[in-house]
Amino acid sequence: MSVKNAFYAQSGGVTAVINASACGVIETARQHSDKIANVYAGRNGIIGALTEELIDTNQESAEAIAALRHTPSGAFGSCRYKMKSLEDNKREYERLIEVFKAHDIGYFFYNGGGDSADTCYKVSQLSETMGFPVQAIHIPKTVDNDLPITDNCPGFGSVAKYIAVSSLEASYDVRSMAATSTKVFVIEVMGRHAGWIAAAGGLIEDQGIPVVILFPEVEFDKAAFIAKCKDRVEKFGYVTVVVSEGTHWPDGKFLAEQGTRDSFGHAQLGGAAPVVANMIKEELGYKFHWAVADYLQRAARHLAAKTDVDQAYAMGKAGVEFALAGANSIMPAIIRTSNSPYAWEVGKAPLSEVANVEKMMPMEYISEDGFGITAACKEYLLPLIQGEDYPPYQDGMPAYVTLKNAAVAKKLDAFEV
Amino acid sequence: MSVKNAFYAQSGGVTAVINASACGVIETARQHSDKIANVYAGRNGIIGALTEELIDTNQESAEAIAALRHTPSGAFGSCRYKMKSLEDNKREYERLIEVFKAHDIGYFFYNGGGDSADTCYKVSQLSETMGFPVQAIHIPKTVDNDLPITDNCPGFGSVAKYIAVSSLEASYDVRSMAATSTKVFVIEVMGRHAGWIAAAGGLIEDQGIPVVILFPEVEFDKAAFIAKCKDRVEKFGYVTVVVSEGTHWPDGKFLAEQGTRDSFGHAQLGGAAPVVANMIKEELGYKFHWAVADYLQRAARHLAAKTDVDQAYAMGKAGVEFALAGANSIMPAIIRTSNSPYAWEVGKAPLSEVANVEKMMPMEYISEDGFGITAACKEYLLPLIQGEDYPPYQDGMPAYVTLKNAAVAKKLDAFEV
Repeated sequence: MSVKNAFYAQSGGVTAVINASACGVIETARQHSDKIANVYAGRNGIIGALTEELIDTNQESAEAIAALRHTPSGAFGSCRYKMKSLEDNKREYERLIEVFKAHDIGYFFYNGGGDSADTCYKVSQLSETMGFPVQAIHIPKTVDNDLPITDNCPGFGSVAKYIAVSSLEASYDVRSMAATSTKVFVIEVMGRHAGWIAAAGGLIEDQGIPVVILFPEVEFDKAAFIAKCKDRVEKFGYVTVVVSEGTHWPDGKFLAEQGTRDSFGHAQLGGAAPVVANMIKEELGYKFHWAVADYLQRAARHLAAKTDVDQAYAMGKAGVEFALAGANSIMPAIIRTSNSPYAWEVGKAPLSEVANVEKMMPMEYISEDGFGITAACKEYLLPLIQGEDYPPYQDGMPAYVTLKNAAVAKKLDAFEV
Repeated sequence: MSVKNAFYAQSGGVTAVINASACGVIETARQHSDKIANVYAGRNGIIGALTEELIDTNQESAEAIAALRHTPSGAFGSCRYKMKSLEDNKREYERLIEVFKAHDIGYFFYNGGGDSADTCYKVSQLSETMGFPVQAIHIPKTVDNDLPITDNCPGFGSVAKYIAVSSLEASYDVRSMAATSTKVFVIEVMGRHAGWIAAAGGLIEDQGIPVVILFPEVEFDKAAFIAKCKDRVEKFGYVTVVVSEGTHWPDGKFLAEQGTRDSFGHAQLGGAAPVVANMIKEELGYKFHWAVADYLQRAARHLAAKTDVDQAYAMGKAGVEFALAGANSIMPAIIRTSNSPYAWEVGKAPLSEVANVEKMMPMEYISEDGFGITAACKEYLLPLIQGEDYPPYQDGMPAYVTLKNAAVAKKLDAFEV
């Protein structure tokens, strides 16, 4: 086995633990410097490969690479850039192979969700036909938790923990105030198509909190929703509502698109939370507060789940180990072997079975009335939020790392993306 | 000194550490059971005193009371209820004294902000003229940080830490995405009249993050704001905006009140963050994300500052100790004795100098262009976010306590509030 370089890129929306996967890739590669000379990272994801903007990770100290494990977001930059199909833009795939060839790259580690799994799969196919074989390994990452085969996706567990803890804390707050003031708290969470993150809010029900969840999987029924909130407030004195950004009316229109216009007549997308909160106020008269977590939820490394951090690292590490053992066109996967006590091991999924397959939340995870989660869902979710893995702090702030991100000298002509 | 009971109540918006003050009051009182027989807590704040709904804290175990130190929000319930002036509603003050008399209450510990300091002051005055002297002690609490004399207010430091850390994490996120996607992140924070909380967002500047702050103290200048954001994005590739909910136009109208109307023509209050984000999009075309932290920021016990927790506890403890030493009509205060290393001690402020005095943020804490904080401001803020004080976790969730809150038998006729 000759010495080759590896290429690593981060794709799509970043997470609290995608850098832990990067850490797993780079630290493991460094342990095998007889086989992997350097890990080049794509500056701003796959675009960095197309434009030949490679980052020389060998210039980072062992301490800096280790600090990736506790640093949120994408240390090398990510991008939202879906490569077109082979038919529509073969030139892009060929360019990738040219860059890999020019920099002696034999391993392609692509860290992302469904789209990047598809790209990764195509690269593995094309590189063979182009006579420069590259081992393409997809490292799973997505807060949406929608990749197939793997039991869960690194990134999701930490968002789930953040939403569960934040919803619990805010519920304690509204419970304190409910007698004379706020009776309804609404928190908006990510999830345009899948309710995995919203479901995590349901974990606070077992702590005695009345919670109503709005899933993208369930068509919004205003009358039933108002009745449910009224019932909760009459019984408990208050209610917490967790609303997915993707919650929509039967005609498919998102709640957030209420035809709201500002004073200049411009359409304004204001979020689902204020829409839901105002709706309750109008129908029931309850005072409300609302929050939109947005990036805070997926960047919250300060509250990451230890399970998630461990798994993110393990996926990066396994990616390199599988590659060194000769694997190609695969994705390391998390295989749950036991619920109680929770146990998992690293599996291996062929990319042909991962690309273009979206795993939906099972309908048996949603309670019959559509506003809560079932025992089966809790059994699935609880292990994923286990454990705390705090970053180190300095002067009251987390000591996150910013890398040098030194450029590798270019060897090819420029390329427009 | 005869044995008396004490009365403790939580007032106004709750915080991540107001229960730590309650813990300080009750634990210290228990150490002096020869002087304080029981601490009765007001169910839902001062309303519980007026309606004689007292909670018997002697029925709580030592473990439960100790757990208050790490539990956010108001364990006995709080309320937004400002007692009228003595002239307008003397009957309410007299009722308070009647309840105190009926339950042999010689100590009144009122845990709140400016309004409750005023109530506390009046009770101390009236009780004497009514011939049933009660020692009235105000325990400082407010995320608004606007009480005089005390260097800072318990509750503020933890919100400041939450906003600083959350803004840092979200900034790492937008930095990762900026090359091809989101370039602007806007976070809305509490502070209708004072920019203390927004100022905490400025602490991330020293970590290399381009941040633009909108304070309620500075009239909103749209052209200057847009120019500042443009400059930051052109220099850094992205920008983080921290906007106070109280940011307003020169005519006093809040940014959040944009005359926005939903499809039914109803006025809708949508938050300052989406207004600001849409404004940047319209003027500069940058893709944005926005978050509204709302209750999450003041309930976030999972990220409390150790300094804040220690001070909240110390204020409760000192309140009881001052009372036992004979003090009346005072508030324990935090006195900063050194910036570096940070050191503080417990002082004592007469309520006559606390009631109806609001401490504003000094204008020399705001940078010349109005969009940032000065070195003096950082020097003031940094010690307040020092240290971490994590709650214990069980099965992935914080182990917060919910008390029994057993009722004390009533002795008086009903009273309408």
